[in-house]
Amino acid sequence: MTLRIAILGAGRIGQVHARAVSATPNTRLVAISDPMADVVKRLAETYGCDIRSIDEIAASDDVDAVLICTPTNTHADLIEQFAKAGKAVFCEKPVDLSLARVKECLKTVESEGASLMVGFQRRFDPDFMALKQAIDEGRIGEVEMITLTSRDPGPPPYDYIKVSGGIFRDMTIHDFDVARWLLGEKVETVQAAASVLTDAKIGELGDYDSVNVILTTASGKQCTITNTRRATYGYDQRIEVLGSKGSVSAENHREANIEIADGSGYVRPPLLNFFMSRYVNAYANEIAAFSDAVANGTPTPTTGHDGMMALALADASLKSVEEGRAVKVSDVLDAA
Amino acid sequence: MTLRIAILGAGRIGQVHARAVSATPNTRLVAISDPMADVVKRLAETYGCDIRSIDEIAASDDVDAVLICTPTNTHADLIEQFAKAGKAVFCEKPVDLSLARVKECLKTVESEGASLMVGFQRRFDPDFMALKQAIDEGRIGEVEMITLTSRDPGPPPYDYIKVSGGIFRDMTIHDFDVARWLLGEKVETVQAAASVLTDAKIGELGDYDSVNVILTTASGKQCTITNTRRATYGYDQRIEVLGSKGSVSAENHREANIEIADGSGYVRPPLLNFFMSRYVNAYANEIAAFSDAVANGTPTPTTGHDGMMALALADASLKSVEEGRAVKVSDVLDAA
Amino acid sequence: MTLRIAILGAGRIGQVHARAVSATPNTRLVAISDPMADVVKRLAETYGCDIRSIDEIAASDDVDAVLICTPTNTHADLIEQFAKAGKAVFCEKPVDLSLARVKECLKTVESEGASLMVGFQRRFDPDFMALKQAIDEGRIGEVEMITLTSRDPGPPPYDYIKVSGGIFRDMTIHDFDVARWLLGEKVETVQAAASVLTDAKIGELGDYDSVNVILTTASGKQCTITNTRRATYGYDQRIEVLGSKGSVSAENHREANIEIADGSGYVRPPLLNFFMSRYVNAYANEIAAFSDAVANGTPTPTTGHDGMMALALADASLKSVEEGRAVKVSDVLDAA
Amino acid sequence: MTLRIAILGAGRIGQVHARAVSATPNTRLVAISDPMADVVKRLAETYGCDIRSIDEIAASDDVDAVLICTPTNTHADLIEQFAKAGKAVFCEKPVDLSLARVKECLKTVESEGASLMVGFQRRFDPDFMALKQAIDEGRIGEVEMITLTSRDPGPPPYDYIKVSGGIFRDMTIHDFDVARWLLGEKVETVQAAASVLTDAKIGELGDYDSVNVILTTASGKQCTITNTRRATYGYDQRIEVLGSKGSVSAENHREANIEIADGSGYVRPPLLNFFMSRYVNAYANEIAAFSDAVANGTPTPTTGHDGMMALALADASLKSVEEGRAVKVSDVLDAA
Repeated sequence: MTLRIAILGAGRIGQVHARAVSATPNTRLVAISDPMADVVKRLAETYGCDIRSIDEIAASDDVDAVLICTPTNTHADLIEQFAKAGKAVFCEKPVDLSLARVKECLKTVESEGASLMVGFQRRFDPDFMALKQAIDEGRIGEVEMITLTSRDPGPPPYDYIKVSGGIFRDMTIHDFDVARWLLGEKVETVQAAASVLTDAKIGELGDYDSVNVILTTASGKQCTITNTRRATYGYDQRIEVLGSKGSVSAENHREANIEIADGSGYVRPPLLNFFMSRYVNAYANEIAAFSDAVANGTPTPTTGHDGMMALALADASLKSVEEGRAVKVSDVLDAA
Repeated sequence: MTLRIAILGAGRIGQVHARAVSATPNTRLVAISDPMADVVKRLAETYGCDIRSIDEIAASDDVDAVLICTPTNTHADLIEQFAKAGKAVFCEKPVDLSLARVKECLKTVESEGASLMVGFQRRFDPDFMALKQAIDEGRIGEVEMITLTSRDPGPPPYDYIKVSGGIFRDMTIHDFDVARWLLGEKVETVQAAASVLTDAKIGELGDYDSVNVILTTASGKQCTITNTRRATYGYDQRIEVLGSKGSVSAENHREANIEIADGSGYVRPPLLNFFMSRYVNAYANEIAAFSDAVANGTPTPTTGHDGMMALALADASLKSVEEGRAVKVSDVLDAA
Repeated sequence: MTLRIAILGAGRIGQVHARAVSATPNTRLVAISDPMADVVKRLAETYGCDIRSIDEIAASDDVDAVLICTPTNTHADLIEQFAKAGKAVFCEKPVDLSLARVKECLKTVESEGASLMVGFQRRFDPDFMALKQAIDEGRIGEVEMITLTSRDPGPPPYDYIKVSGGIFRDMTIHDFDVARWLLGEKVETVQAAASVLTDAKIGELGDYDSVNVILTTASGKQCTITNTRRATYGYDQRIEVLGSKGSVSAENHREANIEIADGSGYVRPPLLNFFMSRYVNAYANEIAAFSDAVANGTPTPTTGHDGMMALALADASLKSVEEGRAVKVSDVLDAA
Repeated sequence: MTLRIAILGAGRIGQVHARAVSATPNTRLVAISDPMADVVKRLAETYGCDIRSIDEIAASDDVDAVLICTPTNTHADLIEQFAKAGKAVFCEKPVDLSLARVKECLKTVESEGASLMVGFQRRFDPDFMALKQAIDEGRIGEVEMITLTSRDPGPPPYDYIKVSGGIFRDMTIHDFDVARWLLGEKVETVQAAASVLTDAKIGELGDYDSVNVILTTASGKQCTITNTRRATYGYDQRIEVLGSKGSVSAENHREANIEIADGSGYVRPPLLNFFMSRYVNAYANEIAAFSDAVANGTPTPTTGHDGMMALALADASLKSVEEGRAVKVSDVLDAA
């Protein structure tokens, strides 16, 4: 059976997924939708698929699943529309910036019995998968403490920052999901610190550019996350997990695996500078995993619940910064 | 313009190239040829191309270029046939195991004015390209000494060894080409040592499994090559170049970039175990480079002359082992 | 001029310092004091020095400086005694477990105009000094975020834990000092999480074995510290500093710089397993720096104030854990 | 029992050994000899030992062993003098530049029943010892191929080159000894290439600055050695051993274990730049091993025979370069 897919949104990430679909066995890109006529036309030609409106796609008999790659503020509505239309749905994170709206949306998904996957591509990175496998095989014993280092080479445009929901909901959210994935236990409390260190203008927009978070589970497992919007040496993405029997860590990816040595020292190239090149394999694996789950009728590997919980951790972090105290995740969830 | 390509030989490397062609912009796989009916059928279906005989392909108006992926003993004849048929030719190394036959074949190619590329994929490996670029940019000054480490995880089947022409012509030949590429100067003399250390049966077949070679150029630049047919930790492929101002080296590729630490130490996964996964990007770049050269009418980045010279170094190495002396490359070339 | 030194306490660290003094040019070990007759006798023989009582040393004309290596609960009294006796004083951390007692003790030191150095040996580790130098040379720009990883191979004996003042005052205190040294700015608030993960008995003793701390300065610089009492792979001591122009990090020390590769991967030996072998050079440099400062009449590179401030950060951390909130360091200092 | 030692020669290496003796338990530096009055006076004061003439030392009842640190052309005579005087002898490499003279000297040593150790300090480097131990423990199976990389930061003075016996006898000789140590089997043939690449003046003095050597044993084990007199990034000393079950390698030592990252990449400091700092621990271990052997009446870990065999490999290498052929070591030994 071939899974017939439509993509909503022909922007950067939509293009990444279009390529992934075309390279995934047993999937076919049927249609693409975007208000930008020339972009969508080019994509449709490249991949030999139709151009359709969102409503046409929802009504299409020849579409089994959609990938929602539109702006964040449309996600929840589209998820509901396509869940009701009987399509399997893959949606880029976040479902919505409002935890209350996410809860509502997930209720619709559940009542429709729809299949929903939220895009946390890091879980599908080959190195991180190998790290997770080492944990699952018991090679480091019981997970105790996790250190996530996640630094962007530079900040997004100011206009994006304004609508991003802030660094915790936009950037740290990926680390929250990785933390949940690796801790294997509910996070109970969140402590966070946040500063503006790289660009005062980010502060004027009401956001931060440098944050540290400590997550603690009921049994006392801890995870720290360190984020910044500026790392001059590239896109820094590391995981380190300490367990009762040992530790496992995943390293960064460089532009090339070479080293030059001279009187000033040994120099290796900087890191890959862009999340799309860093996670190119992760995106491909993610779409393949979604396709497999839909085709086989199995649960998607990441869910709407994962999206909601990562957002709750983001909200709790912000609250912790604002109130200068450890915040219970359950309080944030209950209040939404 | 789209370059229309046919592939001769649907074996392992033919399949790698079929995938590469299908992923390369502005190329199209038109036909494939192989006596193995079921294999060729499957490939033709996967890539939506015709099945044709070799002679049919030579006569096809809709084929601009061929990739010769057949057994070695057919290479020279096919190169001549397709050069005469006016097709651009990409041929896997070696052109032939006989240096005399190679010389003859290249004369035909030349007189036909044909375009011929011999497949030395390592030149297209992204890391090795970055290393070469660092040299070309003058970052290590003048190249002086090169160390090539090239170790197979395990030997090929005995049946293959019998027809391989021996380790120098089959395995070291890639290192000879890399050495020539990086030295940037003619190799004058060759000294080689060869042993059977991993499997006595290889010796019974008249071959070696462990060799070291020193190449020296007219100006005294030196390159050592160390090969073995057995490296338990994977496919070991390293380059180190010492120059007057510094050195540059390229590192191996692992199964995953993770590290596990416990009381017994810090463990990283073994190397990729197979040349096709290790050089997957190199093969893709190689086909793209061939397509570009043919499409643009520019010289191919590797040539029949490169194939001949690498073979001459292999022959000189064997002679050096047999006669226990330094062998002049020009003597080997002249004698052929 | 030769600096004449006496050592109070012939235990583990006293022995380390005796060796350091004997290897430091322009210093001489004059006397040693300890109630353990056999241990002190052996040391006195090895280094050819006198055995004297503490009061005799305080009264000795031929002693310029003392190294206090006795149990923590004697530190403050001895500092005061020797400050009044006109000796330069080096004291192992901490001055006292009570911040109030430390404040009082430092007043005495100040009023006596005595020279006091508190032993934070990590500042004298050659790698950490090189890291600090890189920062001071402006190679990473303005310091923004620091990550300190500090893990013991195993916990100290329960009897020690009982009198240690807890993990923050006993173990993290070294990291607090490193953080202050590298941040170059006052820490304003402390957030901490603490758990018992490796040994329930540690919890029964009222202590923790796994902690994470976030320190924030007035300008928003942040430092995270991660500690555990159990790292199976050795004594894990890493520093990573992110600045506006780049980052600098210091790596661990291994038992040997070798790597073994086979089918199961690439294995490097575990880390040095003991703080005294890990910091052997740091201890020697520390004593040399103390001797230089006393001999030249310059300020000691670490001071009683440093000891007090590190302790204040420990107290603030404990308070943060107990009260579930960010704690101001100034509040802790004022309350003492 | 305390071993009473005298040092002949107060130059650079004599000073290194004086320090090593003073730091080695159960040894005492009794006397030192050197025609340079001021240097020897300073050393004698530092270590509290006598100044004596060579003949006085040979006649001294209170000297058990001597360390010969004088110029090469005096080594053989001194070894004979002190062997006859009943002293245990440690001599810096080489015994002599003439293989015939070495043979003669060793005969005297043997007939006197004297204890002679030749200084090949690399065997006592902690990392190389760990590498050797891994081999001896069978962790890589049977040794098959060895790669020794040994590069000096810069050439010695021209005046030294003139009397050095050439690069093979002066520099490669250390690698020959390491190769013999690790191969565990007699070297049968030698193939060598030599060039002048870094400084034409070295060629005018009749020497080379860049060499590669292949050693082959009777069973076919191979070892390559690559040397140059100029490595801009420091003193490059690496060993890599491939065995039937795996490989083991030893890494270089850097000025500091830090790494700085910015937009131009990740930079580690260059290597230690001087053999005396690189091998500081090796020299100390070497003297301790000599002292232990003499004190316990056990064989010295390196012997006069080791010195002779390393020299024979140097002579064979030179012959291989001159005659352009593989040279049998036995022929060189027999001809001497």
